[in-house]
Amino acid sequence: MGRLVMKFGGTSVANVERIQNVARHVKREVDAGHDVAVVVSAMSGKTNELVGWAKETSALHDAREYDAVVASGEQVTSGLLAIALQGLGIQARSWQGWQIPIHTSDAHASARILGIDGSEIVSRFKTRKEVAVIAGFQGIHKDSGRITTLGRGGSDTSAVAIAAALHADRCDIYTDVDGVYTTDPRVVPKAKRLDKVAFEEMLEMASQGAKVLQVRSVELGLVHNMPIFVRSSFDKPEDIDPHGTPPGTLICSEEEIVESQVVTGIAFSKDEAQISVRHIEDKPGIAAAIFGPLADASINVDMIVQNVSEDGKYTDLTFTVPATDFVRAKDTIAKAKDKIGYAKVDAATDVAKVSVIGIGMRSHAGVAARAFKALSERNINIRAITTSEIKFSLLIDAAYTELAVRTLHTLYGLDQT
Amino acid sequence: MGRLVMKFGGTSVANVERIQNVARHVKREVDAGHDVAVVVSAMSGKTNELVGWAKETSALHDAREYDAVVASGEQVTSGLLAIALQGLGIQARSWQGWQIPIHTSDAHASARILGIDGSEIVSRFKTRKEVAVIAGFQGIHKDSGRITTLGRGGSDTSAVAIAAALHADRCDIYTDVDGVYTTDPRVVPKAKRLDKVAFEEMLEMASQGAKVLQVRSVELGLVHNMPIFVRSSFDKPEDIDPHGTPPGTLICSEEEIVESQVVTGIAFSKDEAQISVRHIEDKPGIAAAIFGPLADASINVDMIVQNVSEDGKYTDLTFTVPATDFVRAKDTIAKAKDKIGYAKVDAATDVAKVSVIGIGMRSHAGVAARAFKALSERNINIRAITTSEIKFSLLIDAAYTELAVRTLHTLYGLDQT
Repeated sequence: MGRLVMKFGGTSVANVERIQNVARHVKREVDAGHDVAVVVSAMSGKTNELVGWAKETSALHDAREYDAVVASGEQVTSGLLAIALQGLGIQARSWQGWQIPIHTSDAHASARILGIDGSEIVSRFKTRKEVAVIAGFQGIHKDSGRITTLGRGGSDTSAVAIAAALHADRCDIYTDVDGVYTTDPRVVPKAKRLDKVAFEEMLEMASQGAKVLQVRSVELGLVHNMPIFVRSSFDKPEDIDPHGTPPGTLICSEEEIVESQVVTGIAFSKDEAQISVRHIEDKPGIAAAIFGPLADASINVDMIVQNVSEDGKYTDLTFTVPATDFVRAKDTIAKAKDKIGYAKVDAATDVAKVSVIGIGMRSHAGVAARAFKALSERNINIRAITTSEIKFSLLIDAAYTELAVRTLHTLYGLDQT
Repeated sequence: MGRLVMKFGGTSVANVERIQNVARHVKREVDAGHDVAVVVSAMSGKTNELVGWAKETSALHDAREYDAVVASGEQVTSGLLAIALQGLGIQARSWQGWQIPIHTSDAHASARILGIDGSEIVSRFKTRKEVAVIAGFQGIHKDSGRITTLGRGGSDTSAVAIAAALHADRCDIYTDVDGVYTTDPRVVPKAKRLDKVAFEEMLEMASQGAKVLQVRSVELGLVHNMPIFVRSSFDKPEDIDPHGTPPGTLICSEEEIVESQVVTGIAFSKDEAQISVRHIEDKPGIAAAIFGPLADASINVDMIVQNVSEDGKYTDLTFTVPATDFVRAKDTIAKAKDKIGYAKVDAATDVAKVSVIGIGMRSHAGVAARAFKALSERNINIRAITTSEIKFSLLIDAAYTELAVRTLHTLYGLDQT
């Protein structure tokens, strides 16, 4: 007997038939004796439809009203799943964010969860074995009494936050993939599913473009030490042994990973642009002169590389931005030329970032060096390098992305055998 | 300067373009200096879609969860209309039933409004000139904190109840007809729009099949003496002079109707079935023996005719039921034969009820007699007659419905000139 939060995304609740399938997944866990809270997204396509209406109504739509409109999608699926569960003979009740309540900040359309009162739900676990079906993605701002939403992908975050509030043993995220892979299987067919990934590794993988889970939900998992199990919603509920070990990936604390690999996965992103500011004075305040204006323009800078200057006087500084912000970033730097005082700017959009991630790097030397050698043997030029404790990222020409990922995947022994 | 509640139904908010049209109607009244609360239905078709999903999910769906699902339709339109109003530069805020709150009974899917706290909305009228956009059809049950709905057509009822709670001067119901007519214009092309109708007359017209307004909303108007103005939502907002008298029908108290007609309108219904129980003992308790079992079977009996028996011993009793309940009603009477003790039952489904309505009947004698004469001249046989203070109803063969309605319409001087 344990306590479980199960989260199902939009494709898993896309129509009544799939909602009934979800109900059978839930029934399996209830029958196994677990207390269960389910978190659901809106039917796939619904949120886009609602967002479209809000935008069509007025280009300058009020975020508070946008949230009232958009949150209705999850209200529908939570009610329908409660009905489906009752149809299987299971006690169930739907909960909107304001009913629990899930208190959030007032940053409408991208609110942050501040607190969840799980007491009523837990009490109903005990007195009635009642399943709580919770509308994901939404909450309420305490002072205004207005509905808030967490922003896209927020249901993952809802699920992990609710799991923490209910002191659940685990948060199961049912998704359209059956786990987290060493890299994108479309690029590397030999990519294999990971049984376990540390929160920190998953954070690097997720923010590097492995789009299985919302980054914020992994952060929450790390903070609350709430194990997150990523598994497939397409498995037939009847085929799964609730007492066995289903296929999937457990995202958990480092301590629970007994045999950690040096490298866990390879992430990559092609939506990068590189800007190199040449011949700037190597003096305090120069970085602020460059990145201050970019921050003011809300441009998200990712890699930053500045080498130690040879003469102690002048140096180059390279950074990357999302490709969509490339033109704005170049303009921003051009406007600040007098303040920064550079010779020229080199820029490129046909670049990609490849990241190698693994907690084992902490205790293993020379991990990155092996990559440099292997890539040079393939004639892949490395434009820039950044490193952190558990990751290093390489900026390369975009054309070589797939070759580089496959080469590194094999190099670090990640290929499926 | 006054205070106005404006209600728009599903066809008026069917898409973003129409919602923007509604916003311009609201702007006109705001610009004229009024405090405005708007009550909206779901986009037309949405409620049916949501109801369909709930039924498809489980035949035995829980009414509490049904309400959570179905109420989402009004949430969407209230948010979108608030956005549209803001787009026109008007302060506006959406309100769900639970936010106001609108307290209702716990009879989910057909809840009754128990109380509305309009204080916050009125305060915002005063401090910010803020338009309240209220989701119709829904409320909240205080003890359970669950969303409730009022049942089909409930948005009219929401609107009048809110108008009463806000002490509005008038409740404008925008609909797809431009008012209440003396009878159905599809049957009598010469039917004319009424400028004013008394609440009591409208109650008779509505329950007799004039489907302009929900009966409950008219009852509420009567109780709170809240004038209801039925008008067209298809008029161009720009063409209406907010200080003039727009086309429509005002449903108001009898006192406000200066020149009352003897007959205000003719209503009719073809969905009737007649059951005559022959040769029953004329003794106390016999009516109870017939109508008790029908009530237990939730069959709604409409006309009841029992004549005084000639010999003081035996009589006949005729009643009508909705055509859809005909078979069940016959079965119920057949099963109770021993208890009732009748000779035989005559039944017919090809019957229609025609009702003549007018507050003036109270003070005018011989109104019905003129109808009997006119119909007999047309060879229309009257099967049964019932009368009330302001109405009489005739049961006739269904084939003669249109002829009878047209004849009576002319007879009482209702034809458009």
